[in-house]
Amino acid sequence: MKQFMEPQSVAIIGVSRYTGEGAFNILENLLSYRYQGRIYPINPSVSEILGVKTYSSVAEVTDDIDLAVIATPRALVPQLVKECADSNIKAIEIVAQGFSDASDEEGKQLQKEIDNIVKAGQTRVLGPNTFGTANAFINFSSTFIKIRMKRQPTGIICQTGAFFVGFSEMAFVGKGLDLGNACDVSFSEGLGYFDNDFETKVVALHIEGMQDTKAFTSISRDIARKKPIIALKTGQNEQAAKAIQSHTGSLTGRKEVWQAIFKQAGVIQVSDVEELIDLTGTFSLLPLMKKSKIGVATISGALGVMTIDASQNFDISIDTLSPKTQKLLDMVAPSWLKVNNPVDIWPIMIETQPITKLMIDGLEALLADHELGAVLVICAAFDEKWATDLCKLLSELAAAHPDKPLTCCIYGPCAAQAIREMQDAGKVVGFPTPERAIRALARLNEYSRLRSGL
Amino acid sequence: MKQFMEPQSVAIIGVSRYTGEGAFNILENLLSYRYQGRIYPINPSVSEILGVKTYSSVAEVTDDIDLAVIATPRALVPQLVKECADSNIKAIEIVAQGFSDASDEEGKQLQKEIDNIVKAGQTRVLGPNTFGTANAFINFSSTFIKIRMKRQPTGIICQTGAFFVGFSEMAFVGKGLDLGNACDVSFSEGLGYFDNDFETKVVALHIEGMQDTKAFTSISRDIARKKPIIALKTGQNEQAAKAIQSHTGSLTGRKEVWQAIFKQAGVIQVSDVEELIDLTGTFSLLPLMKKSKIGVATISGALGVMTIDASQNFDISIDTLSPKTQKLLDMVAPSWLKVNNPVDIWPIMIETQPITKLMIDGLEALLADHELGAVLVICAAFDEKWATDLCKLLSELAAAHPDKPLTCCIYGPCAAQAIREMQDAGKVVGFPTPERAIRALARLNEYSRLRSGL
Repeated sequence: MKQFMEPQSVAIIGVSRYTGEGAFNILENLLSYRYQGRIYPINPSVSEILGVKTYSSVAEVTDDIDLAVIATPRALVPQLVKECADSNIKAIEIVAQGFSDASDEEGKQLQKEIDNIVKAGQTRVLGPNTFGTANAFINFSSTFIKIRMKRQPTGIICQTGAFFVGFSEMAFVGKGLDLGNACDVSFSEGLGYFDNDFETKVVALHIEGMQDTKAFTSISRDIARKKPIIALKTGQNEQAAKAIQSHTGSLTGRKEVWQAIFKQAGVIQVSDVEELIDLTGTFSLLPLMKKSKIGVATISGALGVMTIDASQNFDISIDTLSPKTQKLLDMVAPSWLKVNNPVDIWPIMIETQPITKLMIDGLEALLADHELGAVLVICAAFDEKWATDLCKLLSELAAAHPDKPLTCCIYGPCAAQAIREMQDAGKVVGFPTPERAIRALARLNEYSRLRSGL
Repeated sequence: MKQFMEPQSVAIIGVSRYTGEGAFNILENLLSYRYQGRIYPINPSVSEILGVKTYSSVAEVTDDIDLAVIATPRALVPQLVKECADSNIKAIEIVAQGFSDASDEEGKQLQKEIDNIVKAGQTRVLGPNTFGTANAFINFSSTFIKIRMKRQPTGIICQTGAFFVGFSEMAFVGKGLDLGNACDVSFSEGLGYFDNDFETKVVALHIEGMQDTKAFTSISRDIARKKPIIALKTGQNEQAAKAIQSHTGSLTGRKEVWQAIFKQAGVIQVSDVEELIDLTGTFSLLPLMKKSKIGVATISGALGVMTIDASQNFDISIDTLSPKTQKLLDMVAPSWLKVNNPVDIWPIMIETQPITKLMIDGLEALLADHELGAVLVICAAFDEKWATDLCKLLSELAAAHPDKPLTCCIYGPCAAQAIREMQDAGKVVGFPTPERAIRALARLNEYSRLRSGL
């Protein structure tokens, strides 16, 4: 798997002379990331592209090639795979669509030819129908679309390029592996790589289907004792299974079977893309929770109420504070206010100034409380300065309490800015609604209990 | 209610000399919105604030005052309410906290004094513990925090200022009414105003509790035949009810009872803040759906699969296309691709150029299909130009098909930008994940069926 994930040298077969917008030129993207490995563009018609010397075929390259990326029309692929195998290239990524995902006979026939080459030798194939691999730590990506990568401890194994492209709130790729149709390289092999990769702390999975669920369950179970694995399994019914057939050609499996597999393996199953985004962010930044009770501090009583509603739906406890913490908070609150959990911090703020020593003292009291497994702060970002001040305050508090997960729910016009800044600071996880914050903490708690029980 | 929602003249009682950040000065905010009505700041200690002449009391003002906003410590409030009533002011907003929401006896006593004044005369009270009212169409807001308003056809009635402040994706206030503790002015009166208000097309509700559910049910039922009402009821259990007691002091009511009320009244109940955001945006921009089947066009097969999963969870149909539409789409697709619903439009794009006549033709075919009640497009915003081009393309298509709801799910690094631009253009609703797009369409369909059946 290292040749796929950490290639020192790459051949790009089928690289075009066309560059710029709409050209989807893999070489152009790779150069823009400043990849430092050796690059061998293969194109028999020209002698150089974008200043890089081209070769007429992989056979012409005399150096070792770790990885070959094939991005040609599908009919040419089997012959090119054969040439790579003959040149002793052990890792091949096939970008083209139209194999087991196609509805015609030709696609199935082409796939069979590839399978035969793989079976005969030592060459491994990723895809077809894949974005390939990406690794922010070596500025490498084989994608024909320019993607966002970030040196963060998140690995994703998926069956679509969408997770490489990312969602507005989230770049999934620290490291990425798109299995596409998964004709050869599998989920369990990908997991094996991330198991041993010290740069990856959290593994996110997008699964349409797979052949060998037994190997998957076994290796997931091993890894989940050390690193959280978060999985989105799509294709919950027959209609979706049909759609998957024309997407990656995978066998989907029954919903209940998958729930049992994930449970057995200790994999955290999510219900949609948003939860995958939220949990991948949460697990990559926050420590585990030592207790199941959380403390909530909020400037909005209404949003505090919503956290209680959510805590019931997601099974986490927002309960009475310890007498010591209660006493500390009573000292800073106005006399008419009864301090509960959630703690209403608005009166503390308006009776003095927006972000004050009193507010910090209040949050410190919650963070220092050993009975609380995590703290959630609900606040608004009224303007750009608030957003930045809030991010600074909370990041500093989190840095002073590295063993206590600190999350926040930010509303108001500059909430998106505040959440982004917190993500960049890398200490606190921000959410745009109270329910999403509670759901993430509940799942963090669930995994923390699992780990302490393993 | 007009005096609260459309005041021609406002007295601000308890306006401070302090201005700028952290001063929470209502007058300063009001001036910044460029409100054109008459303003009477009441402050006995100075003669002018921010260039506006001040008065020592409302009695000193000889002109008519539509609305008085009281923003003083709670102990002064009953006396000030009395002075307003004596000066024949018919609408009062009480900003201060610490009445029925307080845990002490003094709060309850102060509330009783206010109740007695209200009962004795014609003066109506909004709050206490309220942000008051806001109306983007006359640049008016009584809030002590500067809020975002937008001239949009959305009205919100809530029991927290959080919805005035808004959530990053969404400004709720076209017009806003924060009932706070709701000691006098009620949900049904607020609904009565929005019923007759031609500037409001959608009403969003945030309910902690209320006294008169019968009046609410009756008027909601009337309005729901004409305008969608979307409601978030918080406080689903005893613990939340306790928190509400110290927030607005409302009676929460049982979860099942509220579900029955909403069902009977034709009110669309949402499960969390995010769904309230999504549906308020959707219902304010899109026409109703004539059929329950939707057409999905996607550049990502994987996200197409997720729409099918979601369609099962949220009860909407993504089914076989009509033979005519199928034939039109087959003509633009590559030979190896079997066109289904969701339609895979990626091959149409990469075989030519990103946004092409072929893609437009494909979307036109879906939009023109009378069997489809709505169309969902799934696409990435790979960079800023893509985001803008995509927004322009979809907005133009929507404008050409004003009777067919068009939504999109946008992923990729510039998704947030694309979604914002679409919101500003006001023709298409954008979502960051496929599941949220499907949920919104399913609820739009549900209400459309209700309306056609009423």
